[in-house]
Amino acid sequence: MEDVVIRTLDKVTLRDPILVEGLPGVGNVGKLAADYLKEQLGAKPLATIYSKFFPPQVYVGEDGIIRLVSNDLSYWKAAPSAPHDVLILGGDYQGISPEGQYEITERVLDYCHGLGVREVFTLAGFAQGRVVEEPRVLGAATARDRVESLKKAGVVFSRNDPGGGLIGASGLFLGLGRLFGMEGACLMGETSGYFVDPRSAEAVLKVLGRVLEVEIDFTALETKAKEIDRIAQKIHEAEQRTSEPSAPSGPGPREDLGYIG
Amino acid sequence: MEDVVIRTLDKVTLRDPILVEGLPGVGNVGKLAADYLKEQLGAKPLATIYSKFFPPQVYVGEDGIIRLVSNDLSYWKAAPSAPHDVLILGGDYQGISPEGQYEITERVLDYCHGLGVREVFTLAGFAQGRVVEEPRVLGAATARDRVESLKKAGVVFSRNDPGGGLIGASGLFLGLGRLFGMEGACLMGETSGYFVDPRSAEAVLKVLGRVLEVEIDFTALETKAKEIDRIAQKIHEAEQRTSEPSAPSGPGPREDLGYIG
Amino acid sequence: MEDVVIRTLDKVTLRDPILVEGLPGVGNVGKLAADYLKEQLGAKPLATIYSKFFPPQVYVGEDGIIRLVSNDLSYWKAAPSAPHDVLILGGDYQGISPEGQYEITERVLDYCHGLGVREVFTLAGFAQGRVVEEPRVLGAATARDRVESLKKAGVVFSRNDPGGGLIGASGLFLGLGRLFGMEGACLMGETSGYFVDPRSAEAVLKVLGRVLEVEIDFTALETKAKEIDRIAQKIHEAEQRTSEPSAPSGPGPREDLGYIG
Amino acid sequence: MEDVVIRTLDKVTLRDPILVEGLPGVGNVGKLAADYLKEQLGAKPLATIYSKFFPPQVYVGEDGIIRLVSNDLSYWKAAPSAPHDVLILGGDYQGISPEGQYEITERVLDYCHGLGVREVFTLAGFAQGRVVEEPRVLGAATARDRVESLKKAGVVFSRNDPGGGLIGASGLFLGLGRLFGMEGACLMGETSGYFVDPRSAEAVLKVLGRVLEVEIDFTALETKAKEIDRIAQKIHEAEQRTSEPSAPSGPGPREDLGYIG
Repeated sequence: MEDVVIRTLDKVTLRDPILVEGLPGVGNVGKLAADYLKEQLGAKPLATIYSKFFPPQVYVGEDGIIRLVSNDLSYWKAAPSAPHDVLILGGDYQGISPEGQYEITERVLDYCHGLGVREVFTLAGFAQGRVVEEPRVLGAATARDRVESLKKAGVVFSRNDPGGGLIGASGLFLGLGRLFGMEGACLMGETSGYFVDPRSAEAVLKVLGRVLEVEIDFTALETKAKEIDRIAQKIHEAEQRTSEPSAPSGPGPREDLGYIG
Repeated sequence: MEDVVIRTLDKVTLRDPILVEGLPGVGNVGKLAADYLKEQLGAKPLATIYSKFFPPQVYVGEDGIIRLVSNDLSYWKAAPSAPHDVLILGGDYQGISPEGQYEITERVLDYCHGLGVREVFTLAGFAQGRVVEEPRVLGAATARDRVESLKKAGVVFSRNDPGGGLIGASGLFLGLGRLFGMEGACLMGETSGYFVDPRSAEAVLKVLGRVLEVEIDFTALETKAKEIDRIAQKIHEAEQRTSEPSAPSGPGPREDLGYIG
Repeated sequence: MEDVVIRTLDKVTLRDPILVEGLPGVGNVGKLAADYLKEQLGAKPLATIYSKFFPPQVYVGEDGIIRLVSNDLSYWKAAPSAPHDVLILGGDYQGISPEGQYEITERVLDYCHGLGVREVFTLAGFAQGRVVEEPRVLGAATARDRVESLKKAGVVFSRNDPGGGLIGASGLFLGLGRLFGMEGACLMGETSGYFVDPRSAEAVLKVLGRVLEVEIDFTALETKAKEIDRIAQKIHEAEQRTSEPSAPSGPGPREDLGYIG
Repeated sequence: MEDVVIRTLDKVTLRDPILVEGLPGVGNVGKLAADYLKEQLGAKPLATIYSKFFPPQVYVGEDGIIRLVSNDLSYWKAAPSAPHDVLILGGDYQGISPEGQYEITERVLDYCHGLGVREVFTLAGFAQGRVVEEPRVLGAATARDRVESLKKAGVVFSRNDPGGGLIGASGLFLGLGRLFGMEGACLMGETSGYFVDPRSAEAVLKVLGRVLEVEIDFTALETKAKEIDRIAQKIHEAEQRTSEPSAPSGPGPREDLGYIG
């Protein structure tokens, strides 16, 4: 079979579209943000992406219907006054091997290039290894002018973060995008790395909304954030109780190690 | 070499054939069921499938003759009154890498599509992690009408199981089958996951027999089930004895951890 | 690059040639036997095989000259009275991935088929997990007539050995060879599995010599066998001394665990 | 995508160019040496090499600008009196799978062959497992005349080192280079294997400078070497203090286990 199979579901002409990528990763920040954006904009299905570089797996819905794991592209046509239509890439998995990551990214970029995409935003989480009360949004970009304009939108460019660079789709869509003549940036919401983090996704989307000149209602995302807070708090309390007897000599409470994926 | 090599052994014309897949997996339920069906129907060899995605291995028979590991397709011509001929896919292994799983499944589906297959049943085990006295058959399907008709045949569609979806050939034959325009369902026999489970295979085949309108004699399978019961019982007893001294404080008897593959 | 590169060093016409394969494996029996046969026959270089499925490695000789790891084919022209010329496949490694094993074997078989090969002998060790004083030669073959003729040459066909079949080149050259219309057999010298075993290689070569009607002088191989015996004996003694204090309660001397590769 | 993508940045005609390879590896000796040579010669960018066999990663500079991981070729035009122009291959990574190593090396060699390269020097570290005060430069070459001429340049050809051969790019560029009709040698600076080792890189470059008839100023490299010495010394002292209580019976100070990559 072809390494990557892209099935087009709808034929559309887009006006200077911008690609927004958000796939599973640290704190699931990128995926949460992309899925929420898709939902709030009412973006429509454009194409489904299957690949032998995804796990050999189907999901089963509550209705008993199976669905092969995939990535998917949705599109949103902006008002005539707005500068850009938007393409959103979401999905179940990133490619599970390094080669797979390259192959999938390159094929999706090629497809999007054909639709007129010349600018890419990738959304991700940035693991700080500690609870982050008010997540900042860190940035990395393909060119100096993007760095400057994102700084004005509130993005933090830190000299040392991310030290080891970006690994996975959020980096590769920018790095390979350059070979297609695309510019772009990665928006990374700070997160502990231990929990799915809707609050970090919200911070990322607020910046993105400003940059894309798109209005987003955050009510539902904030509800989800509070729910996660409540679960985290319960785990914290349970572990506090468990670790008390050994607290004086032990390595201290490990409340922050529980990962709710 | 070609990634997947399919050697046709017999040229046949089949009447609206249904593909039944049963390869090694949880409790070996799928393979046991497919092999037993093949035997009981007297299905004939149609094609042998070799692949570099199987282990580099030959089996040696009791007569000293070697045989390269493979999957194989058999066919059964139904009585003129019955609606469908049947193709059965069995074999030694599933593909040993994710890419291999995709490649083999896609090639076999393509081959079967050429033979007229438009409907697929995949047979599998569903590990419950505890001894299951009377295994139910859980289902997942490609479309709502299949869900409804299988419910009538006694299949259980559970809202939460299988939670993580289906991994491997049993899922992929359905998921990729959809890309070939095939419909189908997976029949999963409940099993402990610790033993080869002919009883679960029998439960699966009973449903399949009803759906395919095929009569199956279960005597030999029941004999095999009793034999496994006896072995399991012995292991249970042996481990009871071993674990007795530490029973009050230890994690309890581990009788359910022995896996007879 | 091509997955497998075969460089022909010499153009020859061979008379009904038989391929003898002996690559690194259990007790290095196959490689020892093939290398010794090559040396004793004075076989000449025919082709070198490079592949990206070998490790990315060069060897450095004592003279400081590098050599890329490879397999190699040598040929021996038999006397006109003898029925077959002989091709010998030896080398540094088997393919290091399952796919690589298939690719390399298939390409070498294709090349050898072009040279007229219709019969293959693969040489291997069979690990018994204990010291073997007088190694038998176990067999597996592609057809009944080969089983019978090898029994007459002293080969043992055991109902239960090798139980799990043959893994690696020794099995694959026979299994894939069948797809090229080749017949053949595997000759497995019993060995402990803990040492390089020239004595087992000698047992294998004695059978092969009878079958190929080739005279082989075993003096040098017997010298090597005695040398290994001496090393094994020393390790045995050293470990006896080490394990003495704990002998009553410990797991006993582990003299057989030292592997001299 | 293509397995290996080479983007040419500059069109040049080179005079009998020699390829010098130095990629990350033991003690980072090869990379340090190649990068320093490039800097000192003022070599200019010739081509960038991307590959799906590198990690799916981008680096982020201090200015927030991303860069896809790559290898890169630079060129230096020698004075008309000197015999050879020089090509330098450096980069972030070697291929991360064995197949990847072969594919990348073969494509780069093919590209360089097109530029006229017939001679290759690969630079590497040779791990001695102990602190090396005055690193020797060990050698391995493709032909006897290279061994002789390198001995005159101070390279040590040891009968036993490197015993297991060379693994990775430094070996493969020579081994595969032979298939392109290229000759060459590997220069290995002795190093502990525990630290990045500019002193070993300097030893390697001194030999290379002699062979290529190129003047190199080592001031900056010596400054770097002293800096590493200072860090190593601090780690040594810290570990001395830590290990003192257990020194009489313990395995001794572990100062040499800290690896500063």
